[in-house]
Order: sequence, then C-alpha cells, then structure tokens
Amino acid sequence: MKIAVDAFGGDNAPLAIIKGAVQAANTMPDDEVILVGDKQKIEDILANETVLHGNISIRHASEVIATGDVPVEAIRTKKDSSLMVTIGMLKNKEADATVSAGNTGAYLAGAFRTLGRIKGVKRPALATLLPTVGDNPGIILDIGANADCRPEQLVQFAQMGAVYAAHVLHIENPQVALLNIGAEEAKGNALTKETYQLLKEKSLNFIGNIEPRDVLSGQANVIVCDGFTGNVVIKLIEGTAGTLFSMLKKVFYRNICSKLAAGILKPGLKTIKAKMDYSEYGGVPFLGLDGVLFKAHGSSDAITIQNAVYAAKEYIAAGINDQIKELMATANADENER
Amino acid sequence: MKIAVDAFGGDNAPLAIIKGAVQAANTMPDDEVILVGDKQKIEDILANETVLHGNISIRHASEVIATGDVPVEAIRTKKDSSLMVTIGMLKNKEADATVSAGNTGAYLAGAFRTLGRIKGVKRPALATLLPTVGDNPGIILDIGANADCRPEQLVQFAQMGAVYAAHVLHIENPQVALLNIGAEEAKGNALTKETYQLLKEKSLNFIGNIEPRDVLSGQANVIVCDGFTGNVVIKLIEGTAGTLFSMLKKVFYRNICSKLAAGILKPGLKTIKAKMDYSEYGGVPFLGLDGVLFKAHGSSDAITIQNAVYAAKEYIAAGINDQIKELMATANADENER
Repeated sequence: MKIAVDAFGGDNAPLAIIKGAVQAANTMPDDEVILVGDKQKIEDILANETVLHGNISIRHASEVIATGDVPVEAIRTKKDSSLMVTIGMLKNKEADATVSAGNTGAYLAGAFRTLGRIKGVKRPALATLLPTVGDNPGIILDIGANADCRPEQLVQFAQMGAVYAAHVLHIENPQVALLNIGAEEAKGNALTKETYQLLKEKSLNFIGNIEPRDVLSGQANVIVCDGFTGNVVIKLIEGTAGTLFSMLKKVFYRNICSKLAAGILKPGLKTIKAKMDYSEYGGVPFLGLDGVLFKAHGSSDAITIQNAVYAAKEYIAAGINDQIKELMATANADENER
Repeated sequence: MKIAVDAFGGDNAPLAIIKGAVQAANTMPDDEVILVGDKQKIEDILANETVLHGNISIRHASEVIATGDVPVEAIRTKKDSSLMVTIGMLKNKEADATVSAGNTGAYLAGAFRTLGRIKGVKRPALATLLPTVGDNPGIILDIGANADCRPEQLVQFAQMGAVYAAHVLHIENPQVALLNIGAEEAKGNALTKETYQLLKEKSLNFIGNIEPRDVLSGQANVIVCDGFTGNVVIKLIEGTAGTLFSMLKKVFYRNICSKLAAGILKPGLKTIKAKMDYSEYGGVPFLGLDGVLFKAHGSSDAITIQNAVYAAKEYIAAGINDQIKELMATANADENER
C-alpha cells in the first residue's frame, strides 16, 4: 500500500511528522510512505534519520496551509500546498490513503472538493476512539466535521460508525447509542429526540441514549452526536484529565514522603495517562468521503503519526469504504422501494 | 429567613434530605427551615435527629413526584406533592427560598407556572459552580433548563450569570466567555456564531470563546452555553473524573507497596475528589424565575442539602433577583430607545 503523509501539517511539522513516517515505514517493508512537502527540507531531515528499507519517497509541494488559515480560502489559493498535493495523490491513484496533522477544516474541504462523498452519504464525519474503561472499545462521531447536523445525518453517522466498529475494532454487532442528556426516550433537544425515533427503525443494534457520564464506561461501541457536541466531548475529556493530573502532581510534590510514594505508583499512573492521551491513538478517519483520509491531532508527535499510518493501513485492509458504499446502496434501494 | 425544603425529592429522600436540613438549621439559629412532605414520616425521622434550636417546622404534603415522572403531567396531577407545596410556599410568601433534589423538569415547570419569570427574562436558566484550578471561581449556565436555545437567550444567561458571579462569588467585573469549539470568532455552530456577535455588543466583560479543554482552567468566571451542551459538560466532567479515580484505584491496589504509597497520598487525593464532587457544592439556582429556587443533585446526600440551604440563604442576602430585575428593566429600556 502507498500512504501519502502531509509532512508540513501540524504544530510539530515537519520534524515530528517525518520522524513518525520513517518509524512507520521502517516496520512496514512491503508498503510505501510518500512524504509530501518542500523537497529540500524533507531531504535535510531524512539525512539524519535511519531509513531501513527503500520504501520512503518524496513528493514536492511548495506551499503550506497553516492551522489558522481560513479553510475555503486556503484550499483555493494554495493549490501547491503539502495538504492539497497529498489529497491530489489520492485522486490520481498515486496513494491509497493520506495522513495529515494539518488544518482540519482545509483537509475536509479540500478532500470534499477533490474526491467527493461516497454515493448516498449526506455528510462525512470524523470519528475517534474513546479511552474506555475495561476491554470494550468505543468510538464517537461526529467530533467536529459538522457543527450543525440534521437527524438523518446522525443516522448515517451511526451506520458508518457501526461499519468501522465491526471491521476495524472487530466487534460483532456493535452497540450503537445516541449521546443524550437523559436515559429516557423523550429526553434531549429537538435533534436528539428526532434522531432517536429514526434510529429505532434502522437495522442497527441501537441500545438507546447514553448519558455523558457513561461515555467512557464502554457501554456503547458507537456513540453518535452532532459535531459540535462531539468536539466538546473529546476536548472536555482531555481538559478534565489534564486538570486532574495537574492536581495530582501538586499532591505528589507536597513533601519528601509524597514524592517517594508517587515514585512507587509512577508506572501505573503512566499507563493511565497514556490511555487518556490522544497521541497514542494516532489518527482518526473521515468517514463518508470517497477516499481514505486520516486526520492526526494538530499537536501530533512522531508516535502519533506512526500510529496514524498504521491506522490508515488497517482501514484500507478492512475495506471500510467498500462496506460503506454497499451500505449506502442498500439504504438507498430501501428508501426508493418505500 | 425561611427556607422550605422538599423532604421527598431525590434518590436519598426523605432520610438524607431531613438530616441535611437539620444540620443546616442547627448552624442557623436565626433562620427557619420548613420540611415539606408526609408529616408522620418526617416526625419519625426527626425523632432520631438532634435538633438544637426550635427553628424546624413541618408542612404536610400527601404526594410525591418521582424522578421518572413526566414533568408537565406531574405538576398538573400531583398538586399536593411535596415539590408543588414547597413551590407554593414561595408564592404565598411563607418561604423566602426553596430547596429540592427532586425531578428537575417538574421543579422548573412547577415554578415557572406558579411564580413566573422576572419581567423581561426570556427563559430561566440553571447555573452551577465549576471545580476550577486555582483560586478563580467559575460558573456555567445553562446546564439543563433549556435543551434548545436561541442566541438572545444565551445573552441573557450571560447577563444573569455575571450578576451571580459579582454578588455571590464576589468577583469584580466577572469575565464572561462563550463555550465554543474553537477560539476564533468565526468558529462554532449557528447558535454560537450568532451569540458571539450579540455578546460583543453588550456591556459585559466578554472575553470571547472558551474551548472545552479550558472549562476547568478558571480563565472565565461565567461560561455560557445552551442547556444541552451545559448538561453534557457537567455530566462528562463527573464521568471523566469518576473513570480516572477508578483507574487510580486499580493502580493503588496492585500490590502491598502501591497500597502503602496510596495510603501516604490519601489526604491529598481526598481533597481532589472533594473538589470534583458536586455534592460539596450543594444546590444550584434557577436564574430568571420570580423566586429563589435551588436545585440539588438527584443523588444528594445530607451534606449537599445542608450546603444547598446555605447557598439559598446567601443568594437571598445578596439580593440577586432584585439585581436581575434591575438589569432586565435597564436592558428593556435600552432596546425600546433604539
């Protein structure tokens, strides 16, 4: 497989991105990683890296889209940006998947314009893994591709999320829940109330509403919400965990006894921190676009990028987009029959 | 002051509610606490409590509104419920404030119908304190009174929240922020984008958007959002903190060394847990209703109820509702002038 990596997207680009891509390539001798961006700069960095196999190449791109750039404007004016060239390689079948830690809005808008949606998909969505308790993994979507949503869009997010959970997380008949502010059917805002009724009728393993306090419980494999709420959820989990860890730090550094005690607990605490840390999860896929695109966190380090490349590879191998195409074709046929 | 307490609202009613009310009354000899509900049952419980002063009385009510009852139906059919009788005492000037841990929707709907809004207030809101890092306290509203909101309602929440922050939290010129999924003005959904523009024009200390990851940072004293989002925020903070504490517990109980280490850190950890625990905060006020009404968490224990009684007393002393009346009168005069 060929995976194109936007070497100039993200806060730690290009160094961390290139390092991560090299680390991934070194463990995937049968696949190819293509670094996209300023050729000279990439070569300078690669000169200091250990490349084990001959499976890294460079595609030159002269411009860079910054995190603060206005998406629609950036994708129009910076056609030779590393991000747009990366996306273009998907279109031209020069890559099977892309990874970028750059401007999310520009990535989505650029991909939307260049590749389009899978037929029947109303809106693409961003999904991410949740750091759940126990062994039951969960994803949540949309986490920011669509700030305002309609009920039918949420239903499609549920369907696409279930495909992802089944074939990437290997969960048989994944449990789908609607994020809501109450367990009862009648609870919520206009959007969730209407979505609940639609979800009941679909051939999904719909388990009803899930309350925010249970998001990390592992009770549901697929949690559906609008992109505004989903973005609030993932950033708030991050913020709350960060706040708690900084409070813990104060307790640990109080005196010599507490420092010693903290030292004993350190390995266990590190595991928890890693579990709550998004960088460990690598990238998250845009579901519903006609191409395999992974978005890594803006503050991604090398390990995140490495994991994002792995995730993209797994996504292709699982044939997720073909599954979504089939699902949409069936769903549309069903609707036309009625 | 006279504070009426709904003795039969909440998961731990009536025992924990009565205990909490007695604890409060015992420290407030100059004020009166009225317990509302089944007279015989209240008397039976009181017989086992130490009442220090003669400042506790009972108001009989024969019915109970359950947490699962449909609000609009419950307030119509259960007129002699402890909740409705409690609210009625405000209307008849037999109480200066009410406290209930019962059905939130019924409490709001009952109060709305019985007492009405402060003139000019479009929608009442529920506000709560946030467990912020550092010494800068913060509140967030609405946390669930209104699942769907319009921009003008959010502006009023900001104004009422600023009054509360100034006069109950004693913050001069409180910083008001809009909860949003990006720092920039143009970010967000339709609601937040429009609200941002309206907030800019008001005579508030509006500091712009606050991202979910900074909600607990203490960067803003008043955080404004719709009731769906606000409810997600407080329940998710609770859930994330709970998840982290259960992960920590596992680390602590791993072996004898870790148990000893955890023992040393215990006092500090307890402080953190208390800070993240809503029961310590007592009740939260409905802002905008023409009466002083405090809502305590459904799972309130005695300490929560005690703190809710204190909070209600402080709210009356600070004259918050008079301030909101004045604010609305000025705001309406301004709008009529234009």
